[in-house]
Amino acid sequence: MLKPLLALSALTASPVLAQTAAAPSPADAAPWDWQAIPDNQLLVMTLKGGHQVFIRLAPRYAPAHVANIRKLAEAHWWDGTSVYRVQDNYVTQWGGGDDKTTLPPAVIQNPPAEYEWARYDGVTTPARPDSYAAKTGHSADGWPVATDGKAAWLTHCYGMVGVARDLAPSTGSGAELYTVIGHAPRHLDRNIALVGRVVEGMQWLSALPRGGGALGVYENKAEHVPILSVRLATQLPEDERPHFQYRATDNARFAAWLGERENRKPPFFTVPAGGADICNAQAPVRRAP
Amino acid sequence: MLKPLLALSALTASPVLAQTAAAPSPADAAPWDWQAIPDNQLLVMTLKGGHQVFIRLAPRYAPAHVANIRKLAEAHWWDGTSVYRVQDNYVTQWGGGDDKTTLPPAVIQNPPAEYEWARYDGVTTPARPDSYAAKTGHSADGWPVATDGKAAWLTHCYGMVGVARDLAPSTGSGAELYTVIGHAPRHLDRNIALVGRVVEGMQWLSALPRGGGALGVYENKAEHVPILSVRLATQLPEDERPHFQYRATDNARFAAWLGERENRKPPFFTVPAGGADICNAQAPVRRAP
Repeated sequence: MLKPLLALSALTASPVLAQTAAAPSPADAAPWDWQAIPDNQLLVMTLKGGHQVFIRLAPRYAPAHVANIRKLAEAHWWDGTSVYRVQDNYVTQWGGGDDKTTLPPAVIQNPPAEYEWARYDGVTTPARPDSYAAKTGHSADGWPVATDGKAAWLTHCYGMVGVARDLAPSTGSGAELYTVIGHAPRHLDRNIALVGRVVEGMQWLSALPRGGGALGVYENKAEHVPILSVRLATQLPEDERPHFQYRATDNARFAAWLGERENRKPPFFTVPAGGADICNAQAPVRRAP
Repeated sequence: MLKPLLALSALTASPVLAQTAAAPSPADAAPWDWQAIPDNQLLVMTLKGGHQVFIRLAPRYAPAHVANIRKLAEAHWWDGTSVYRVQDNYVTQWGGGDDKTTLPPAVIQNPPAEYEWARYDGVTTPARPDSYAAKTGHSADGWPVATDGKAAWLTHCYGMVGVARDLAPSTGSGAELYTVIGHAPRHLDRNIALVGRVVEGMQWLSALPRGGGALGVYENKAEHVPILSVRLATQLPEDERPHFQYRATDNARFAAWLGERENRKPPFFTVPAGGADICNAQAPVRRAP
């Protein structure tokens, strides 16, 4: 861990590092590597204080759950609900909770269990093995995926968003969601529907006080963080819509980026790891310039 | 992710789960599996508001850095310093920073680089491969360790505490420390000295507002979280000393515990992972009953 003083100077003053930073790298994205995230795949949650959390949805992997989430947003269903659970090194959870259980008519109570599927669509593969799957990688559009050679699934990395559920056969409606705020709880993979990833504003969910109740549930209503609104970008006036881009991974430039994540460079790193687990190498997402 | 309502009832009311919880398991610790953490291996940091963070030190792995840390605590050197850096999904860092750079005379400016050593002392091994090392496991006294077959090292898991340093050959004095608050940054393994693990009070470091400056450094002094005191338990009056215990891992009961982490059970889990990376299976530490 660099000491900030030096780190800051390294980012600003140090001629050597400045040159390193300025030099073009085979890991640099080409302009066309940055692809727009469609408005109907972007969820905007506004919390008390106006803090906003932006979530990229994954309709390809969890179409029925994402369809529910879109209907809930369109019905303004989450407005007035809250963040009610924050468990350290695990998850932050929000939505209906015990305050609001009736769903809009169009929302399916228990969609199909969209936990895994047949076709693995990873196009990159980290250099070293994974502790949970035969193979992991990034889909062409940047989702972290894994396979055992038969089924494929999304992985529970930091910032991934999933659907809280009761015991099986419940699959969760999507009215209660959580995001990972600690070390990847990969044991949840294939047991729960992952529907997206927080692409900006994660700190408004990860830095909340931890709940004192069982499973990190806030013990007092006063601790709940009110959700002012949740909208799809498509519900916002065009000139108010945020625009994000994912970095395409099906190219040599991203492969080089992954290689650099796996082998960090001097002057700070003296021993390169030679690998990186999928959750320590999540594909970049950025605001559209 | 269980919905809290059901989860709470599961922890309290559900007869089925109640029976499961009550039934003795081969993964249960025997009374003698709980071993005392010595007073001179426990650091107590008190932050503004009286919030306390308890850190188990690892003198066996980083003797020179831990010797420095003991001298700094004995000199009350950290009193009046602050937590000045919180980078989301990475680290919280505290200590001298740019405010306080002169060390007590007995403290060595750059101890030997205690990043790895020759003897691997892991006594357990997760069922599946690791993404960073040939083998990982827990030492008999509960530290997460890894090896490539030649060298061995501690792993950067959530809550592990390391020594901030400048560029090599700096190894850091120990006056500036950090702890992991996100997904395990295993690329730091072997590049930096790990000296301990937060065993209680992690939320006082993980739930702090993220810093807006480069590398998560707080931009305004007003954001800094004052450190009121840092003491070794040996410096506290005997009747005020906190007492913690680690769970010994060199027994079949812990192996069964690890097996249960790797294969979570119904009714919630329908697909067991069949594995767990070392940072998703950290050995338990508890307050002495």
